[in-house]
Amino acid sequence: MKVSFEDLKHFLEVQFPQGATFGTLEALGDGWAEMRLAIDDGHLRPGGTVSGPAMMGLADVAMYAALLGRIGLVPLAVTTNLNINFLRKPAAHAAIRARASLLKVGRSMAVGEVFIYSEGNDEPVAHSTMTYSIPPEKSQK
Amino acid sequence: MKVSFEDLKHFLEVQFPQGATFGTLEALGDGWAEMRLAIDDGHLRPGGTVSGPAMMGLADVAMYAALLGRIGLVPLAVTTNLNINFLRKPAAHAAIRARASLLKVGRSMAVGEVFIYSEGNDEPVAHSTMTYSIPPEKSQK
Amino acid sequence: MKVSFEDLKHFLEVQFPQGATFGTLEALGDGWAEMRLAIDDGHLRPGGTVSGPAMMGLADVAMYAALLGRIGLVPLAVTTNLNINFLRKPAAHAAIRARASLLKVGRSMAVGEVFIYSEGNDEPVAHSTMTYSIPPEKSQK
Amino acid sequence: MKVSFEDLKHFLEVQFPQGATFGTLEALGDGWAEMRLAIDDGHLRPGGTVSGPAMMGLADVAMYAALLGRIGLVPLAVTTNLNINFLRKPAAHAAIRARASLLKVGRSMAVGEVFIYSEGNDEPVAHSTMTYSIPPEKSQK
Repeated sequence: MKVSFEDLKHFLEVQFPQGATFGTLEALGDGWAEMRLAIDDGHLRPGGTVSGPAMMGLADVAMYAALLGRIGLVPLAVTTNLNINFLRKPAAHAAIRARASLLKVGRSMAVGEVFIYSEGNDEPVAHSTMTYSIPPEKSQK
Repeated sequence: MKVSFEDLKHFLEVQFPQGATFGTLEALGDGWAEMRLAIDDGHLRPGGTVSGPAMMGLADVAMYAALLGRIGLVPLAVTTNLNINFLRKPAAHAAIRARASLLKVGRSMAVGEVFIYSEGNDEPVAHSTMTYSIPPEKSQK
Repeated sequence: MKVSFEDLKHFLEVQFPQGATFGTLEALGDGWAEMRLAIDDGHLRPGGTVSGPAMMGLADVAMYAALLGRIGLVPLAVTTNLNINFLRKPAAHAAIRARASLLKVGRSMAVGEVFIYSEGNDEPVAHSTMTYSIPPEKSQK
Repeated sequence: MKVSFEDLKHFLEVQFPQGATFGTLEALGDGWAEMRLAIDDGHLRPGGTVSGPAMMGLADVAMYAALLGRIGLVPLAVTTNLNINFLRKPAAHAAIRARASLLKVGRSMAVGEVFIYSEGNDEPVAHSTMTYSIPPEKSQK
């Protein structure tokens, strides 16, 4: 693990000034990260449930956090593929949590999976897999 | 086509009061819809490019629009699977456009694909496929 | 768990007389199944490695086994979506193993994930997620 | 287009001696390829329909053909991600056809989409998107 929780949290806040929209870093380990998104009306969709894009945004940034924790602060790592299955209706006003785990980190590419939960419920509401492309000049610190 | 452009546009504005975040309906045909998202700083990510979640949100709602144009105003149709490939770096401050086309509409499920473009450029920046689940009691008008 | 290991193994052999091509059932639990595919030349691709389709076939049938173990012998359950990431080059002549786990089983739809390994290696060579559609008249016993 | 129809057809037959299992090249253009798979009992699944793996194998090799037609005979190009939606039940004993189109060809990665049809029917039975990784030393002729 090349980056501390505090450094990554600070990095995400600086890089994504709009970041509260996507979620905040809660925990970080070697090859994984957990993020949390407090739900407000802007995250809801018809039917009063958490919107797909809110979950996709959280999944995407959680994987980004897990990857940067492993390879260092590489802002230009970008998602090339994301697949998500929506499994259950999330609770309407509960926060959602994402746990991202790396499945493989190569020289130019990384793959991981993310489970998303409604806070207080053990059954995942969504599951996503993602590929990130890692630019040649890696950490820029 | 069961729904007019004006009715669908009105429906989306009422159902998604935060909708400008996702995009606005530009055109609607039998089995397809086009939406547009004006980009502001809240849609950018590190590197100054349009964020993945902004594109995923637009793709999702464009497919929703194409589907509702076909089956009627069924607010509770929900995405069950979304897959997206990010193909090229979008222009930083250009609006993005999505064109969604239905590939199949069944009784309880619909599948479609969405191409996303930076305005003024013919090469797609992203391509997405999606499955929507259609609830049993369809149109509620 | 509605089906025993022996009953499911027998069912798969009868339903897929060509089944050795896809793999054989090795273990079955509540919500999961393990299958194994012995590799011969017909499963290789240029470069002398296990082909993508061999891994996709094994993933697909492993998920089918996990699902039927849970819901009963429903031959007409069909895959509606499959997504797979190829993570590492499999060993050329080692058997491959798949472990499928259900993420959600609903009334008409089930979602699961499958890890694939080269026998004797702990790092997955591929990871797949799948959706199965479950026909209305479920078990036919 | 760097490769002729005849050269690619010959290449596929040599590289995949088991290739008839996956399909044969029918047409090739700049950025696209068409392949055909004659269905025998080995391609069927419970319910007497064409199996998912048969369609996935055809989709995979059709995209491989479209890519090699564009970049030259690079045997070690490998699939890194495949996503497929099964749309309709294929006819049981009709051949299936795949038309693959490239969406983007980069230096190290290519993305394309594939439509699969039952011969004699205009509505696609499946739709797939794929990412191929292109090895650094490209054509080896």
